[in-house]
Amino acid sequence: MSEICRVVVDAMGGDNAPLSNVEGAVDAVNKNENLQVVLVGKEEEVPPLLSKYTYDKSRIEFVAATETIDMGEAPVKAIRAKKDSSMVVGMKMVKNGEADAFVSAGSSGAILVGGQVIVGRIKGVERPPLAPLIPTAKGVSLLIDCGANVDARASHLVQFAKMGSVYMENVVGIKKPRVAIVNIGAEEEKGNQLVKETYPLLKNCPDINFVGSIEARDIPAGDADVIVCEAFVGNVILKLYEGLAKTLVSKLKEGMMATIRGKIGGALVKPSLKKSLKAFDASEHGGAPLLGLTGLVVKVHGNSTRKEICNALMQCENFKAMKINDKIKTMVDINEE
Amino acid sequence: MSEICRVVVDAMGGDNAPLSNVEGAVDAVNKNENLQVVLVGKEEEVPPLLSKYTYDKSRIEFVAATETIDMGEAPVKAIRAKKDSSMVVGMKMVKNGEADAFVSAGSSGAILVGGQVIVGRIKGVERPPLAPLIPTAKGVSLLIDCGANVDARASHLVQFAKMGSVYMENVVGIKKPRVAIVNIGAEEEKGNQLVKETYPLLKNCPDINFVGSIEARDIPAGDADVIVCEAFVGNVILKLYEGLAKTLVSKLKEGMMATIRGKIGGALVKPSLKKSLKAFDASEHGGAPLLGLTGLVVKVHGNSTRKEICNALMQCENFKAMKINDKIKTMVDINEE
Repeated sequence: MSEICRVVVDAMGGDNAPLSNVEGAVDAVNKNENLQVVLVGKEEEVPPLLSKYTYDKSRIEFVAATETIDMGEAPVKAIRAKKDSSMVVGMKMVKNGEADAFVSAGSSGAILVGGQVIVGRIKGVERPPLAPLIPTAKGVSLLIDCGANVDARASHLVQFAKMGSVYMENVVGIKKPRVAIVNIGAEEEKGNQLVKETYPLLKNCPDINFVGSIEARDIPAGDADVIVCEAFVGNVILKLYEGLAKTLVSKLKEGMMATIRGKIGGALVKPSLKKSLKAFDASEHGGAPLLGLTGLVVKVHGNSTRKEICNALMQCENFKAMKINDKIKTMVDINEE
Repeated sequence: MSEICRVVVDAMGGDNAPLSNVEGAVDAVNKNENLQVVLVGKEEEVPPLLSKYTYDKSRIEFVAATETIDMGEAPVKAIRAKKDSSMVVGMKMVKNGEADAFVSAGSSGAILVGGQVIVGRIKGVERPPLAPLIPTAKGVSLLIDCGANVDARASHLVQFAKMGSVYMENVVGIKKPRVAIVNIGAEEEKGNQLVKETYPLLKNCPDINFVGSIEARDIPAGDADVIVCEAFVGNVILKLYEGLAKTLVSKLKEGMMATIRGKIGGALVKPSLKKSLKAFDASEHGGAPLLGLTGLVVKVHGNSTRKEICNALMQCENFKAMKINDKIKTMVDINEE
């Protein structure tokens, strides 16, 4: 039997809290015998829900937290002030070694801030990037960073490239993942100041398989496995993916519904369209890890369902089993020699 | 009769040169009696083509240029060295007042460089932005800047907002266009250094209808008319639009072709899908003007067809008729008081 992985779930985070979070936890322990879950949340809400399900009682624990952090709250202030929130209590357990990972569908800002100030960075890691998997024509690519590190420096981007490579190779199973930097042209001399500084550093980096620049046009085609960018750009890419797919699909539907011929055809193609679109939905590809922390923190979509919470818990188990943090530490050590 | 608008067309630029460029020019003068066109290009290629068409001979002129600037050439070097290229010769005509506008499907980089160093900026304009129209659920929005101004300053973005407003109001006909700045959250305190600096300046700008931040997710829905951003981000948005639509469509087709039911339905929905997709094709919405120059420079897509060249010429006539540059000059004067 493999090592036990203990994950704290922020029971109060997300649009479907606490129901989806509790159900996802139950599913995960029923599916994966290496998982133990700690649900952190309100005494009056979580235990009564939990009592309705069947699972190995020794593998889901409840810890009470009286406060919650809402989506609209200023992250830094909320993390500081709400000491008894599900997020702060949960992250402290990771910090203190009482758990390996923390999963939340709550406020992204608070997760990013809490990850850095409560859980803390691995020594040598300059900035922890948020790295979601995005769908492509060929499968998935890791978009790193979509997080809080706006106005990053070149040295940060080099670490993102390395951490992203470790993740893609070990968690997603892609050998020698192709690393590219988001740029506005394919040539080495193109780009803004940050890209021009970062490009030669990536080119001379022995630990990664750097393939050069990638234009945004070629990201959906799957031309690279690890897409390195500064967080502002990463956020624009991730959100445009979401928004454009949504608008395009509604335009296509509208077009089909405009004629009788289209309506009949539309009814016939509906199942296949649904399947294709699902494969291309960014929220279908698990949680986004905040890499480079002493423990794992995973941000899942705010409207995550039972299935997505369960998948994120599996992802944590895989992360621990593959010893990602040990690999990141080794990588940082090599850098510092 | 309105004023005559004289436009130079780079006959040698683009994938379909010189044929589409010549045909587009012929169509434009046949459609719009205020247009005069100057085709600049190779003596041995352009006049023989032109002689095959019927049009008012007094309204299309040919000017010889022995050189061409290729897509792969370094822009600054090419503009400097190739004095007798169609691009340099054409832009000089605008500079010297022999023409009002210049249209090219050639190298974007060379167009951007040539626009600035040959045609030159309106006094007071700090940086000329490239501003294409992008399709949205509600029509089109102006994405400003997608050009060469990477690492822009806040004052540049404020000018983009103003010039973009003038363009949308007068050329596209949207009253009080809603101006938004691309950001990674809706709140004023969100963003990178540049956005944080620019936001209050836009908020306090009396000449525009500033509606705040826009997240990339909401751009395709058409939540703003003028989308202000720094060129690196604008380029990522424009190219991701292109790439994502392409990949999504091929995924949908692949999905439909996987079952017999889907194949039959697919045949039925094909015409309506084609129509919807065309409306959502960024290259269908005319050329991208480089705003803030003493004359107008319009960059059209490299694979522009006859129709697109013709549309870009119409756009130039409209630009002159609406006195956009006078309006930009007034705006700049107001700023400098």
